[in-house]
Amino acid sequence: MVNNNKIINDPVHGFINIPSGLIQEIIEHPYFQRLRDIKQLGMTNLVYPGATHSRLIHAIGAMHLMKEAIVTLRSKGVDIDSSEEEASMCAMLLHDIGHGPFSHTLEHNILRGISHEEISLAMMRQINKEKEGRLEKTIQIFEDGYPKHFLHQLVSSQLDVDRLDYLRRDSFFSGVAEGMIGHERIIKMLNVHDNSLVVEEKGIYSVEKFLISRRLMYWQVYLHKTVIAAEQLLIQILIRASELVNNSVDLPGSPAIIYFMKNTFSREDLNNKALLDKFALLDDNDFISAIKQWQSCDDKILSSLCRDLTMRRLPKIVLSSEPVDYEGSDGSGYLVRSGEVLNSGYDIKGEYIGILSKDGIVRNIYDISDMLSAKAFSQVTKKYFLCTAKS
Amino acid sequence: MVNNNKIINDPVHGFINIPSGLIQEIIEHPYFQRLRDIKQLGMTNLVYPGATHSRLIHAIGAMHLMKEAIVTLRSKGVDIDSSEEEASMCAMLLHDIGHGPFSHTLEHNILRGISHEEISLAMMRQINKEKEGRLEKTIQIFEDGYPKHFLHQLVSSQLDVDRLDYLRRDSFFSGVAEGMIGHERIIKMLNVHDNSLVVEEKGIYSVEKFLISRRLMYWQVYLHKTVIAAEQLLIQILIRASELVNNSVDLPGSPAIIYFMKNTFSREDLNNKALLDKFALLDDNDFISAIKQWQSCDDKILSSLCRDLTMRRLPKIVLSSEPVDYEGSDGSGYLVRSGEVLNSGYDIKGEYIGILSKDGIVRNIYDISDMLSAKAFSQVTKKYFLCTAKS
Amino acid sequence: MVNNNKIINDPVHGFINIPSGLIQEIIEHPYFQRLRDIKQLGMTNLVYPGATHSRLIHAIGAMHLMKEAIVTLRSKGVDIDSSEEEASMCAMLLHDIGHGPFSHTLEHNILRGISHEEISLAMMRQINKEKEGRLEKTIQIFEDGYPKHFLHQLVSSQLDVDRLDYLRRDSFFSGVAEGMIGHERIIKMLNVHDNSLVVEEKGIYSVEKFLISRRLMYWQVYLHKTVIAAEQLLIQILIRASELVNNSVDLPGSPAIIYFMKNTFSREDLNNKALLDKFALLDDNDFISAIKQWQSCDDKILSSLCRDLTMRRLPKIVLSSEPVDYEGSDGSGYLVRSGEVLNSGYDIKGEYIGILSKDGIVRNIYDISDMLSAKAFSQVTKKYFLCTAKS
Amino acid sequence: MVNNNKIINDPVHGFINIPSGLIQEIIEHPYFQRLRDIKQLGMTNLVYPGATHSRLIHAIGAMHLMKEAIVTLRSKGVDIDSSEEEASMCAMLLHDIGHGPFSHTLEHNILRGISHEEISLAMMRQINKEKEGRLEKTIQIFEDGYPKHFLHQLVSSQLDVDRLDYLRRDSFFSGVAEGMIGHERIIKMLNVHDNSLVVEEKGIYSVEKFLISRRLMYWQVYLHKTVIAAEQLLIQILIRASELVNNSVDLPGSPAIIYFMKNTFSREDLNNKALLDKFALLDDNDFISAIKQWQSCDDKILSSLCRDLTMRRLPKIVLSSEPVDYEGSDGSGYLVRSGEVLNSGYDIKGEYIGILSKDGIVRNIYDISDMLSAKAFSQVTKKYFLCTAKS
Repeated sequence: MVNNNKIINDPVHGFINIPSGLIQEIIEHPYFQRLRDIKQLGMTNLVYPGATHSRLIHAIGAMHLMKEAIVTLRSKGVDIDSSEEEASMCAMLLHDIGHGPFSHTLEHNILRGISHEEISLAMMRQINKEKEGRLEKTIQIFEDGYPKHFLHQLVSSQLDVDRLDYLRRDSFFSGVAEGMIGHERIIKMLNVHDNSLVVEEKGIYSVEKFLISRRLMYWQVYLHKTVIAAEQLLIQILIRASELVNNSVDLPGSPAIIYFMKNTFSREDLNNKALLDKFALLDDNDFISAIKQWQSCDDKILSSLCRDLTMRRLPKIVLSSEPVDYEGSDGSGYLVRSGEVLNSGYDIKGEYIGILSKDGIVRNIYDISDMLSAKAFSQVTKKYFLCTAKS
Repeated sequence: MVNNNKIINDPVHGFINIPSGLIQEIIEHPYFQRLRDIKQLGMTNLVYPGATHSRLIHAIGAMHLMKEAIVTLRSKGVDIDSSEEEASMCAMLLHDIGHGPFSHTLEHNILRGISHEEISLAMMRQINKEKEGRLEKTIQIFEDGYPKHFLHQLVSSQLDVDRLDYLRRDSFFSGVAEGMIGHERIIKMLNVHDNSLVVEEKGIYSVEKFLISRRLMYWQVYLHKTVIAAEQLLIQILIRASELVNNSVDLPGSPAIIYFMKNTFSREDLNNKALLDKFALLDDNDFISAIKQWQSCDDKILSSLCRDLTMRRLPKIVLSSEPVDYEGSDGSGYLVRSGEVLNSGYDIKGEYIGILSKDGIVRNIYDISDMLSAKAFSQVTKKYFLCTAKS
Repeated sequence: MVNNNKIINDPVHGFINIPSGLIQEIIEHPYFQRLRDIKQLGMTNLVYPGATHSRLIHAIGAMHLMKEAIVTLRSKGVDIDSSEEEASMCAMLLHDIGHGPFSHTLEHNILRGISHEEISLAMMRQINKEKEGRLEKTIQIFEDGYPKHFLHQLVSSQLDVDRLDYLRRDSFFSGVAEGMIGHERIIKMLNVHDNSLVVEEKGIYSVEKFLISRRLMYWQVYLHKTVIAAEQLLIQILIRASELVNNSVDLPGSPAIIYFMKNTFSREDLNNKALLDKFALLDDNDFISAIKQWQSCDDKILSSLCRDLTMRRLPKIVLSSEPVDYEGSDGSGYLVRSGEVLNSGYDIKGEYIGILSKDGIVRNIYDISDMLSAKAFSQVTKKYFLCTAKS
Repeated sequence: MVNNNKIINDPVHGFINIPSGLIQEIIEHPYFQRLRDIKQLGMTNLVYPGATHSRLIHAIGAMHLMKEAIVTLRSKGVDIDSSEEEASMCAMLLHDIGHGPFSHTLEHNILRGISHEEISLAMMRQINKEKEGRLEKTIQIFEDGYPKHFLHQLVSSQLDVDRLDYLRRDSFFSGVAEGMIGHERIIKMLNVHDNSLVVEEKGIYSVEKFLISRRLMYWQVYLHKTVIAAEQLLIQILIRASELVNNSVDLPGSPAIIYFMKNTFSREDLNNKALLDKFALLDDNDFISAIKQWQSCDDKILSSLCRDLTMRRLPKIVLSSEPVDYEGSDGSGYLVRSGEVLNSGYDIKGEYIGILSKDGIVRNIYDISDMLSAKAFSQVTKKYFLCTAKS
């Protein structure tokens, strides 16, 4: 019998089946393939040099966990048909498709005021057109418009397979053991109750551990001081380069990066295939390559900033739990910045993580955990930073 | 050059060097070798069948982590000479030497009222005699009588290398990913301040994770309901067998097990080499072998209890956070028991885990963690159980 | 929906599903549960102290790989119905059920002249009676009497899931990285051709690696000199103890061990449930417990041999590739023995491992591997040893 | 005490100490930092998407294994002083410093006829000048001019720490378990005899496994058909782009990539700091960014080739063990190429891997291995390929 499935070797999850049909078609799509050249963790490899993994492998890993979750739910009698399975898996492949390079840093600098979620949705709609509507169900699940709400929760909620994959994966590649979670166990404990995703009672400790691991990964990896410093420097570089470009200075750089520095867009533009195609040309290489070249440009400020980043002469970062007074400049206007970073933890206002007891009652984990502090739950931890030139 | 070091292959830590001299002599001692036949986790393999690892490999692993900790501390300028290194490593080899088979279950049934710590110390003193005083420093460190207090803390405190090894190891062999801790990172963050062991500030998240992992391992592994049920059954078997033996019933069993069921001892007896030697003959095999044989003894109660354990017809356990009223019997007097289990977590009254800030101040992790709940810290979690016959 | 499947946490393969029905019943059977107290690698933990894993967890792991293999074959269009799946999985659970304690050492000393395969089959037939014939298909597959020959090959051949599990598992627990094989990849490459199991062409390197890893595990672990020495000592102990028992000396020991030392059996006795039940009472504990007690028995030879084993004063082993001349005694008759060990590698006379090329032709790996030596293939490596008292 | 060592978290080896002084200075040097943007395995991530690790982390990992090897050798009485230790570690950091982007593919297309080893040496000499001669000993060890020959062998021989790191690392990131080697064990078995590096006898199986794993990694990863196809396409792109550039066509691209396409160099030019600095500006980003832009250039051939690579429409590769007849063109001159790939295995003509027996004799592993085929040893496996346009 002919078997057109493909297999991908993932160091994190082992062999991953790639079923033929729509899933393979999406993986072949240029919008998806560009994720190969976008690092999942941006400049984090400055601190954790193993963390060079791409958004592409994360998307495939998350798709794999979706499949695992569906197998578990079916074994417990939850009805999920094969078209729903495919649509949910496609939703995982595409959930981050709208991320640009260094997305968490540059989100508001490339397509100003437009979030990556909006771009993801626009790209899905564009692919859907090309595929003659075969992504309808995927989009419904992504947008929470599909009757089986729990499928949306698997894609996007406080305990979705996105988070299960990225914590495990970022931990694997960075070498930070603190992020190891029992994702296999959590998936085995999933169930559906009243059309909502729940975790069976004996999985509660694994969920607590998941929440804590996530938090630790934030402080230790995602919000590492050196990473924040590099990101701040990158933002300053982009701001300065944009100023120059918009003042008719002729900077070297790929057509794509120059285009997005020169133009501003509105939400409506996202309906424009040509714009999406242009956006899809942007990846990490455009930025790194441009910054290397700008080291020797005529503008003293830009060249100096770019040399600092390349040589890793990063600004000094002071983190504090109190807002930083100083908002200003050291004269140049580029070398002092303050800001804040959030480690949002568990959001008590949003849709909660439900724990299903043996007697069939679902409770918010917030109400029944005796390990996690109220503070850990109820409050966003915000840290303020002041970022100044190195010496 | 001749090199008499030996190497042991440990699946958890890799190759472990066993320096020649005192350390090898202790490992060869019969008191130590008996740990080979005592499972670290007693009957836990009924639930987690991979968890058959011995106390011997844990003791060697803990010795290895002690060496790693000493290497780290020295690299930070802490003065530890080679005799202190050897003594600290010996203390780790011997810290659990007094454990009997199924120790957590039977501690108060074999040598009534004498803790395994007391037996450990007695055995150390006996070996010290045989080695003509070469274990003096080891015993001082173990008893906290040595001037360098931090060496004792590495052996026994709320963040000692014993815990670092057993959490990692029990997680490895049971397959419970929740117990994975970043023990390498914690060790790298250790330092000494005012003669006390501290963790450098940027290790705080790893310590939080360690505390939580420990707690999760308690609920998920050490205090697993099925394990408690089997332990309760084992206790009942021992009580009944002791009654019979002390009523002159002739039960089969190794001389050692019969001896300890027939006799009672006081603390003073621990000075008696002959008793220690007898105790050193006891291991898991004596108990499992006896229970198999008692299945067909004449006493209906004992044979029935032993068959239940062998066939894994375990009593029913109900855990609750409220004390269980019922204390009594179902007529037979053997099949209903209540009791409690503790998950002690972080002890806020004991010697705290100190976090050393960059400005040189040491703070209790209890005061500065914003993740762990006060409850998680301040309160022992006690659960009560009622244990009744299966049907 | 009620779901009576169980899940076992295996540190090697992760979560293993235990389907309800026959599979769970077999696992609960006393013949199977006894494997919990029989170490897969006998006395190997003297050298590799982590290697204390039981035959029980290996049997369950092998059953899991059988399931994985079936899933792969089905995805390639091979027809395997659910009763065949269950029967194949049961065959893996039971394939080693007839092993006694220290089986490779004592096979010919406990039930003389009867192999563990014969006992396995007898036990399967006994369980089949108890289960009213529900194991018929299992036995057919095990005995190669079932039309789908490839199912038998999965159970027992030169590339069966038994070997895939034990190499991976023994490597994991011993810490010997050399035994790591790509078992996942090999399973993904399995296919069926002309009713025979084959490996697809691009799996050839993994098969070569598997053959080499197996060989390395033999020299490094299974046939480690110290392990052979301890086994030879154990054999001498059993021989001496049997002599005494059969000369009416009253040795301590469990009824089961004494019974098998006193009596001789023929193949016909295997039809006798009572004998099988007795055999099923024997496990590692009987031997270790007896040996400890025999240390202080009156017979000087036996007590001395037992003390040697307990204190790990092992005989000296000289391995050579030439037969050892000396066959005799040093006067006591017990302290010099010669013998041989085999590392059989790939058997070129038996059923070969077939490699399926893209054009549909199956070739013997022996004919197409350009890496492995003819010697590695064509010749059993035999080593001779001379085992003398330590002095 | 102040401790200026740094620690890097490596997912493969764990925490790696970076001693202060020369080692840290080299890591900070721009020549070294550029390795961060050069993937160790070039385009292999097209097949194994996890394999995005950089040459930088490999160099650091190899330095770490050098340290481990030195610790082992010292423990066996080999005299290595601290300056030799530092020099050997620096040699590992710098051993691959001359690799350009996609080095194995483009080596002969960027600096024609100059090998990466020559560039490495030139860069070392340049850094040595900047560091006022502090790299003398490093260069001597690298060039095998230092009296302690075994240090050179650790850097570069058939069993050097370079290979130990890259096999383990490439296996880790690609997820190909076949490449797992027991590098820890091999290092523990190293010794020095007559000023040469040898492996102690009981490490022979690990060395056999190492040779086989290396070979398997070649066929399964390094010479994977899809990777060869992509590399062939990349070569064609570079050839065509160079033709255009040298015919005064104005192609977009970073100054560095254009410069190296336009100019030819001789060995003497390597003494020129300015050239080395230019070369050090080249990394993966320049190529990927250029190829993206060339997709829309005016030259039909170049734009088509670039679109093929971006869309992964790779040429068809036929591998055969016979030379491929056809050398020509399909009319365009760009779409048919033949060539060969080598899997060189163990080189019997070069300096052999010596195995040290207990009686102090060193033998070539070739003469004493009974597992590996003569062919595996004596013969380079060469495969020929024909590479044609996809459709």
